[in-house]
Amino acid sequence: MEKFFYPRSIVVIGASVTKMNLGHIIVLNNRENGYEGNIYGVGREEGDIAGAHVYDSVDKIPEVPDVAIIISPAQTVADFMEACGKKGIKRIVIESGGFSEYSEGQNILEKKILEIADHYNIRFIGPNCIGTVNFDIKMMMPFGFFPETPSGGRVAMIVQSGGIGSAYLKEFGDNAIIPGKFAAIGNKLQIDEVDVLDYLIKDEKTDVITMYMEGFKRGRAFFNLALRSDKPIIVQKSNRSNLTAKIAQSHTTALSADDTVVDGCFRQAAVIRAEDNIDFLNAVKIIRLPLMKSRRVAVLSRSGGHAVLTADACAKFGFSLVDFPPAFIETVKTIYHTRVIAHQNPLDLGEIFDYTIFTKILEEALKLPDVDGVLFNHLYVATYEAEMSRDFLSNVGRLVKQYQKPVAVTVNTDAPELLNISKNQGYPIFTSPLIAAKALDVSATYYEEKTARDARGKNVPSSINMAAIEKIREHCGAEKRIPLTDEALQITGDAGIGCVAGVTVKSAKEASKCKLNFPVAVKLLSRDASHKSDVGGVRLKIQNHKKLVEAISDMKKVFKKIKPQPTIDGFLIQEMAADGVECFVGGRQDPVFGPIVIAGLGGIFLEIFKDTSIRLAPVTKNEAMDMLKQLQAYPVLQGARGKMKADIDAFSDVICRVSQLLTRAQDIAEIDLNPVIVHEKGKGVSIVDSRVFFK
Amino acid sequence: MEKFFYPRSIVVIGASVTKMNLGHIIVLNNRENGYEGNIYGVGREEGDIAGAHVYDSVDKIPEVPDVAIIISPAQTVADFMEACGKKGIKRIVIESGGFSEYSEGQNILEKKILEIADHYNIRFIGPNCIGTVNFDIKMMMPFGFFPETPSGGRVAMIVQSGGIGSAYLKEFGDNAIIPGKFAAIGNKLQIDEVDVLDYLIKDEKTDVITMYMEGFKRGRAFFNLALRSDKPIIVQKSNRSNLTAKIAQSHTTALSADDTVVDGCFRQAAVIRAEDNIDFLNAVKIIRLPLMKSRRVAVLSRSGGHAVLTADACAKFGFSLVDFPPAFIETVKTIYHTRVIAHQNPLDLGEIFDYTIFTKILEEALKLPDVDGVLFNHLYVATYEAEMSRDFLSNVGRLVKQYQKPVAVTVNTDAPELLNISKNQGYPIFTSPLIAAKALDVSATYYEEKTARDARGKNVPSSINMAAIEKIREHCGAEKRIPLTDEALQITGDAGIGCVAGVTVKSAKEASKCKLNFPVAVKLLSRDASHKSDVGGVRLKIQNHKKLVEAISDMKKVFKKIKPQPTIDGFLIQEMAADGVECFVGGRQDPVFGPIVIAGLGGIFLEIFKDTSIRLAPVTKNEAMDMLKQLQAYPVLQGARGKMKADIDAFSDVICRVSQLLTRAQDIAEIDLNPVIVHEKGKGVSIVDSRVFFK
Repeated sequence: MEKFFYPRSIVVIGASVTKMNLGHIIVLNNRENGYEGNIYGVGREEGDIAGAHVYDSVDKIPEVPDVAIIISPAQTVADFMEACGKKGIKRIVIESGGFSEYSEGQNILEKKILEIADHYNIRFIGPNCIGTVNFDIKMMMPFGFFPETPSGGRVAMIVQSGGIGSAYLKEFGDNAIIPGKFAAIGNKLQIDEVDVLDYLIKDEKTDVITMYMEGFKRGRAFFNLALRSDKPIIVQKSNRSNLTAKIAQSHTTALSADDTVVDGCFRQAAVIRAEDNIDFLNAVKIIRLPLMKSRRVAVLSRSGGHAVLTADACAKFGFSLVDFPPAFIETVKTIYHTRVIAHQNPLDLGEIFDYTIFTKILEEALKLPDVDGVLFNHLYVATYEAEMSRDFLSNVGRLVKQYQKPVAVTVNTDAPELLNISKNQGYPIFTSPLIAAKALDVSATYYEEKTARDARGKNVPSSINMAAIEKIREHCGAEKRIPLTDEALQITGDAGIGCVAGVTVKSAKEASKCKLNFPVAVKLLSRDASHKSDVGGVRLKIQNHKKLVEAISDMKKVFKKIKPQPTIDGFLIQEMAADGVECFVGGRQDPVFGPIVIAGLGGIFLEIFKDTSIRLAPVTKNEAMDMLKQLQAYPVLQGARGKMKADIDAFSDVICRVSQLLTRAQDIAEIDLNPVIVHEKGKGVSIVDSRVFFK
Repeated sequence: MEKFFYPRSIVVIGASVTKMNLGHIIVLNNRENGYEGNIYGVGREEGDIAGAHVYDSVDKIPEVPDVAIIISPAQTVADFMEACGKKGIKRIVIESGGFSEYSEGQNILEKKILEIADHYNIRFIGPNCIGTVNFDIKMMMPFGFFPETPSGGRVAMIVQSGGIGSAYLKEFGDNAIIPGKFAAIGNKLQIDEVDVLDYLIKDEKTDVITMYMEGFKRGRAFFNLALRSDKPIIVQKSNRSNLTAKIAQSHTTALSADDTVVDGCFRQAAVIRAEDNIDFLNAVKIIRLPLMKSRRVAVLSRSGGHAVLTADACAKFGFSLVDFPPAFIETVKTIYHTRVIAHQNPLDLGEIFDYTIFTKILEEALKLPDVDGVLFNHLYVATYEAEMSRDFLSNVGRLVKQYQKPVAVTVNTDAPELLNISKNQGYPIFTSPLIAAKALDVSATYYEEKTARDARGKNVPSSINMAAIEKIREHCGAEKRIPLTDEALQITGDAGIGCVAGVTVKSAKEASKCKLNFPVAVKLLSRDASHKSDVGGVRLKIQNHKKLVEAISDMKKVFKKIKPQPTIDGFLIQEMAADGVECFVGGRQDPVFGPIVIAGLGGIFLEIFKDTSIRLAPVTKNEAMDMLKQLQAYPVLQGARGKMKADIDAFSDVICRVSQLLTRAQDIAEIDLNPVIVHEKGKGVSIVDSRVFFK
């Protein structure tokens, strides 16, 4: 990727000498902004654009440029690529649109491009993109105009949409965020976000990586990079719902991923997710400050009303307001004395007009060991106080560095002044107490997730009998059917996950002869019915042999009425498990992220509240425990309101083992252990049912 | 209130001639902004402020001003009020702070002020406030400076915090929202939000009422006004949590209300709740457009990326994207033709640079009968397109009026241009697709809630035996104890709510002689234990007399071990109720809003998910049904996943009757029917337990 950001020479293919077309703009941008490499054009007519020479064919260029930018109509792209290949150019950015985002028929074009790239060993970005920018060397491939940007920025951006990317660069400029490297990768037919991310994680000139993604192409590779990144990665992942599928496809050919999997992946890898542009900017603003290491805050406010709003916001994000110790109050009183306002947290500074006092009080608050971060509400009238405010913000910046704690400043002032200070003052400011508190929440959450991630520990050792599983798979394959319940339980057992034992019988008669510990459950085994209970194929709490025979006969009668009739492959008889909390553990091979594991409580928790927890497999013990803690229903497992404490240790073991199984046996498309009855602490779990689907 | 907004003459008490104090600023503000009434000052020295005469005592003023503004130190306020009273002044605004918001000791001052007001029949606003503004007549009582504001504004504002109020007026100015009348009411010792709201609802020059409240003083009166208001009322209610209690008390003496009650009240009365300043402005912007009458939208976008974001936002707010009919697509194709972009909803307009085409396509979309509102993403570069954008926005405004459907326009452009257009273009604009969609959601929700509110129907006729209830109350009062369970069930029955019948016995021996239909439940009756089950005082599913006697003896043994031992007032024996969904209905006298009713499903729904529904009592049948629909667990009542459909008709009847009881018998402090077992549709409910507390 290096040369895509640091090309010594560029050619723009599709640059017109005479009219202001997109290629022309690209050449102009680089010439006028000060890119020091060589830049050439290729167009129909030879000539000059601001001193850069335009040739009428690729082979006339007097050197082999590091990068070729192609911005000609879609159907001409392949020929130009071929010409580049012949010339020896190894890096191309295809900005032209009109490929598979436009219609499926264009797949042929894409295939051809890939073939040419393969043949000439070319790496390329696009098509349907605006390419890269390196603000440090003023190199800019996009065909839009960019605002003047200082160099030295350490925030990088990878986007799938040039429009969104340009909008965000503009918002960066308005918020004193200096961008460093930028890449818009469009349809990412070859080079994708993972390639760029890998480069940026290693890049010494990048501290923070931001991304706008409509679809992940290699979700697992993204995850593996993110999991090891010490740099914060902020991602706005759109295309979250069924409503977006069509438009995202026609925009950047992105396929929508299961959004809950994205959430699980991000939490696990400590990736910061931004919902919209406000979130996105907020995250970038706060993440460059020292992190909140816990959730104890001090609130200082020039307005009582905003102090109330800030305290509300603190409650919303789970912050506690530190009780100011008497020594702090005494110190504050020596700094200023007022009759009207009480000394408490939030501290109302409404009576103070001397700005040096703000700095002093802020410093005292930052000194308190119990304070992890500060929310400061600043209100002022630009006419009188602009200069003092700037000084104050500089002091805030200094103190933040000195005490290594974040201070989120909400500024309320006249709109032009706000714009001015946002743009030109280095220290980040926020526009409402809620947004400022949300920013600190981003900081605290990132710290928590990163700490957990870095202490995730090792994967549990797996003891999976792959040969036994393979045998069942072959058997089912030969019979072209899904595994029956007893086979699914067998597979689960082969993965080292103990299930409730059972006896398989073919008939009521056979059942009547089995030695059994009543009460028992009896379940239909059928290749046609993976949801047994939906066809009445499960009977519980059977007390004796007579009732068992009755139950089987009765079930058979019921099946006869169902159309189409399910094949009866037999019946599974199991001892009834002891009581406990009904939970489930499942998983599948996700097309984007690979093996994933899902867990939660069953019944209404799953069906009504959709209260589930997802991670990429395999998960470590710590991650499995974190999955449980994330559940809304976690208090149920902890023994809410006098109920028993459940054996979450045994439960989390099952999660780990299922995640191992899906990782090792990737031909298992899906597995679902439901219910997993979690008994009282120390008494383990009973897995009474399992469904397995092979690919 | 009229004269507080239209005073013909004002005196400012505490205005200094020589120095720029707060009183001086108030006089100046009015003189310089063009208030045409008479304005006087009262201060230590006689003299002039910008042509307004300052006297050294109230009695020297040459007329009786309509309003006196007092802005002198707290301890001098009473004397000045006395002077005003003697002079015959009937309306006062006390802006001075330092009253009970500062310390409880100041209650004496407040009492004195109330006495004087009473004696002279004075109506007053404050203390600790900035008073009223009427932008129409340029009359402004606050001691801060205001930006120049055009007249004719029809958005009114009531605030409890002058700081927040001033900040919002500034934000109004930056967003082309013209304010009309403004009132900051501070500690609201006498005149409160209800007085002002009542006036504004009737005021012909007000269309929209906005409020910032830290505490409601007369919640019930507010509710009754809101319930009948045809004008939208937008309220930001802060002070929502235990973290805010202290700061809100010291800011405006506001006591925090139960936030879930506030939510219930707002939903019932179709009051729009804003969480923060962004929500607040958004609501004001959108509510002045025609309302969204259903949730079907068209999305038009100049950027593919923003189209994806908009579709995500639509999914979030439950909007559906209309399938564009072929005729529409044909029409659009005649307006413009492009090769690169597909014709679908969202419609990507990225290839169009002719603004007249936007207007034409927008008009076609608005014409579609299936479209209830439009989201338009507009991106432009100020340098080239500012003028065209302004014309376009004017056209949007015209079309919105013509077709009576809202169009939420998101604008993405250079920051100074955005500021300029926000401030100066009459048509409201939004800054992100998510915020624009959220605004349309406000519109649609308001329409839904208002429609439901206006069709809420009548209260159910109540048949409450008040005399019987009063008798139990007296009996309990005489014995200084809470009602026992059998009495609570009796009270419930007296309210026309049928409960499961029971027999009360004093001993196991007595129980052994009762005629009973087994199985039964037996419950402790004790004046000391309102939560019977917590002391082991409930036994269920008892099958015969022998087991019943055993159960009672065993319970007695258990109670002996509890310290302090509960008094045994007897035992209640009830037949076991049939199966059903375990729900509850309760209610209480809320200190702010009066009688309220609460309902939901019991167990984990209540305890883990806090899934409850609250309304102000009494509720109509429609409102009771709406309470149930609001529950997350509503699908359980509807028979999710093959379960039985529950008798929500009977359940909602119980809600209505409980709400009636709390309304009629306001000496019932609290009632809790739990469980209310809701049986299969048509089979009613079984109320097996009731707790009642008198005041």
